Amino acid sequence: MSILVDYRIAAGVDAEKHAKVIAVGQTAGTWSARFEHRRDHFEQHLGVVEQIQPQSDGSNLATVRFPTANVEDDIGSLLTMVFGKYSMAGTARVEDIRLPDEYGQKPTFGITGIREQLGVYDRPLVMAIFKPALGLSAYDHGEIFRDVAQAGIDVIKDDEILGDLEGAPTLDRLKACREQLETVSAQTGKNVLYAVNVTGRADLLFERAHRLVEAGANALLLNVLSYGYSVLEGLAADPQINVPIFAHPALAGALSAAPDHGISYPVVLGTMMAHAGADAVLYPAHYGSLPFPKETEMEIRDRLRNRNVLPVPSAGIHPGVVPLALADYGTDVVLNAGTGIMDHPDGPGAGTHAFFEALAQAKPGVSFELEQIEAGPLRRALEKWGTP
Amino acid sequence: MSILVDYRIAAGVDAEKHAKVIAVGQTAGTWSARFEHRRDHFEQHLGVVEQIQPQSDGSNLATVRFPTANVEDDIGSLLTMVFGKYSMAGTARVEDIRLPDEYGQKPTFGITGIREQLGVYDRPLVMAIFKPALGLSAYDHGEIFRDVAQAGIDVIKDDEILGDLEGAPTLDRLKACREQLETVSAQTGKNVLYAVNVTGRADLLFERAHRLVEAGANALLLNVLSYGYSVLEGLAADPQINVPIFAHPALAGALSAAPDHGISYPVVLGTMMAHAGADAVLYPAHYGSLPFPKETEMEIRDRLRNRNVLPVPSAGIHPGVVPLALADYGTDVVLNAGTGIMDHPDGPGAGTHAFFEALAQAKPGVSFELEQIEAGPLRRALEKWGTP
Repeated sequence: MSILVDYRIAAGVDAEKHAKVIAVGQTAGTWSARFEHRRDHFEQHLGVVEQIQPQSDGSNLATVRFPTANVEDDIGSLLTMVFGKYSMAGTARVEDIRLPDEYGQKPTFGITGIREQLGVYDRPLVMAIFKPALGLSAYDHGEIFRDVAQAGIDVIKDDEILGDLEGAPTLDRLKACREQLETVSAQTGKNVLYAVNVTGRADLLFERAHRLVEAGANALLLNVLSYGYSVLEGLAADPQINVPIFAHPALAGALSAAPDHGISYPVVLGTMMAHAGADAVLYPAHYGSLPFPKETEMEIRDRLRNRNVLPVPSAGIHPGVVPLALADYGTDVVLNAGTGIMDHPDGPGAGTHAFFEALAQAKPGVSFELEQIEAGPLRRALEKWGTP
Repeated sequence: MSILVDYRIAAGVDAEKHAKVIAVGQTAGTWSARFEHRRDHFEQHLGVVEQIQPQSDGSNLATVRFPTANVEDDIGSLLTMVFGKYSMAGTARVEDIRLPDEYGQKPTFGITGIREQLGVYDRPLVMAIFKPALGLSAYDHGEIFRDVAQAGIDVIKDDEILGDLEGAPTLDRLKACREQLETVSAQTGKNVLYAVNVTGRADLLFERAHRLVEAGANALLLNVLSYGYSVLEGLAADPQINVPIFAHPALAGALSAAPDHGISYPVVLGTMMAHAGADAVLYPAHYGSLPFPKETEMEIRDRLRNRNVLPVPSAGIHPGVVPLALADYGTDVVLNAGTGIMDHPDGPGAGTHAFFEALAQAKPGVSFELEQIEAGPLRRALEKWGTP
């Protein structure tokens, strides 16, 4: 078994030589005559340059094959091998990593499991984000939760910025929302997932995750790149953490936004999240407020779905983009809105209703025409945020 | 208390506007009239744009002040706040983060503690790296360990690529080396630290670290960026992990090598390592094989030493660079060599002797002249690797 990695090596750099440096220097390295008797062992670990393809911009795409015997079936050892020391040479970008299917973990819940928990099988899920991000009390969280839950929301999550802070400790937020969930659920019969942001030094983070699940958390949110893929892997593999894990992309741009350095977004937010055990992954939507190319977004979508991971395109989502999202995604997607629900002129409940109205009325790919929408939450949303 | 962050915002981007987006969007965000009664709470969390300084290349250096009340005294929440969502805007690089002294952790051992463990107070430490990186047996590790230990080495570490692999499991390598350490130590009275590479899914990594320390590991090596600063913090805070932690910079280039994106090397390998509890930090040396500016290296050195963290300039170190290293570092430094010890023409023991000869004979900043060096390990090393 092997792992294939595409490096784009900058124009003006000797691609053959550098590909060789990667294949050898990031694996066994060289050996002196003293160790010639172990040649077989070294050779089992050596990488091999598969091909070098010149690109139109003068760069070269070098494909290196690595033995899986060099790594530990996780993302940490993979990153060290693929781009450990060599990342500091400053001459290449990791464009793609192709892992064996069985490498790493699969989601415990994923698309099918999250749908089962919600009892929703035939439409996109609707998700809200608590806003403002910092400064609300636990009580405020509970009130917002009740609003959106009564309006039929599927999932709500903490803002990724909101950790375990004095003004609204994580466990208090959870308790305030659980209480509302029980009341609303008894009325409507419908479940709502609350993805609670789990934070902290890795050992404390695991402890907190356990405490949260014991206290009734039915989903977790993790800033995977701020804490490490190894932490996601640990949570995903833990039988006591029997709730879906929503992976947030915070910090991904520090790895992926540069054109000629780092690691591509589809690898960081697609491949590695999907092999580290995430159940759902958030990432920028091209409709939205972040400069994200559509083809990058679609590539992430496919890599996630191929492993039953739920795609959550985010940032700048409001009811007006629902027809575009349906065209790009069909039903296996989460429509995730922060201000696009919270700042609805008539409040978060109306913001939630606006999404369900949009889902009921949208034709995939056909923008809403304002004058054809009846008065109500959707129309109010379109008046505020437009119909792209 | 507050945290100051310098963002370099690309030429052509409205720096005032983007600095404001960071100060507000990465903290409380905006709020609607409904939450006006909590204005005081939101304002306590808001960032403030301190200044914007135009740079000669057309970019702008924007300084944003963040309240420490937004974060959890760790690196994970810091990264999410400073460069979470905004990293994906693709318009800025984090050039500097200035943390309060008491933020995060200090090293448990650091320069003074590592010197005490070795009983060496008045000279640079000499450190070797097991090579080849992959394909040696645990027995081979023991043999190499004996060679360099008998020659007086202070520290030896695993190659960062070498995880817990079938051919040479981590615990077997440790046992093989411990046995040699006890024999050599009984002869020489001198301690040697073996920084054992601790790897794996975060929960397993903690378990392994415990098992290794119980089995006699007297130092650990961690690829901090592959596994997460949160894992370093967890190990550093654990009273059972009562051994120094050597932080390896693998993957740092994925965050830091791009000119206009990511986070600067001094922040990634200096500030954040030093506040996450590392005892010693490896990073590229400008004498070496990686393209690293001297001023970046010196900046990292100072940030580490300011918190009693031991600097370990690495890559391309051989006895010929000792006079340069002494000029740049004086005594509180580790001279860390892989092939520069392992591939000495007369073996790793001679490679170690060559460093001690170099230390005894070097005048800081004055290159060795080959013809003035007596026959022996140093001369053999200089003949092979030159006198820069």
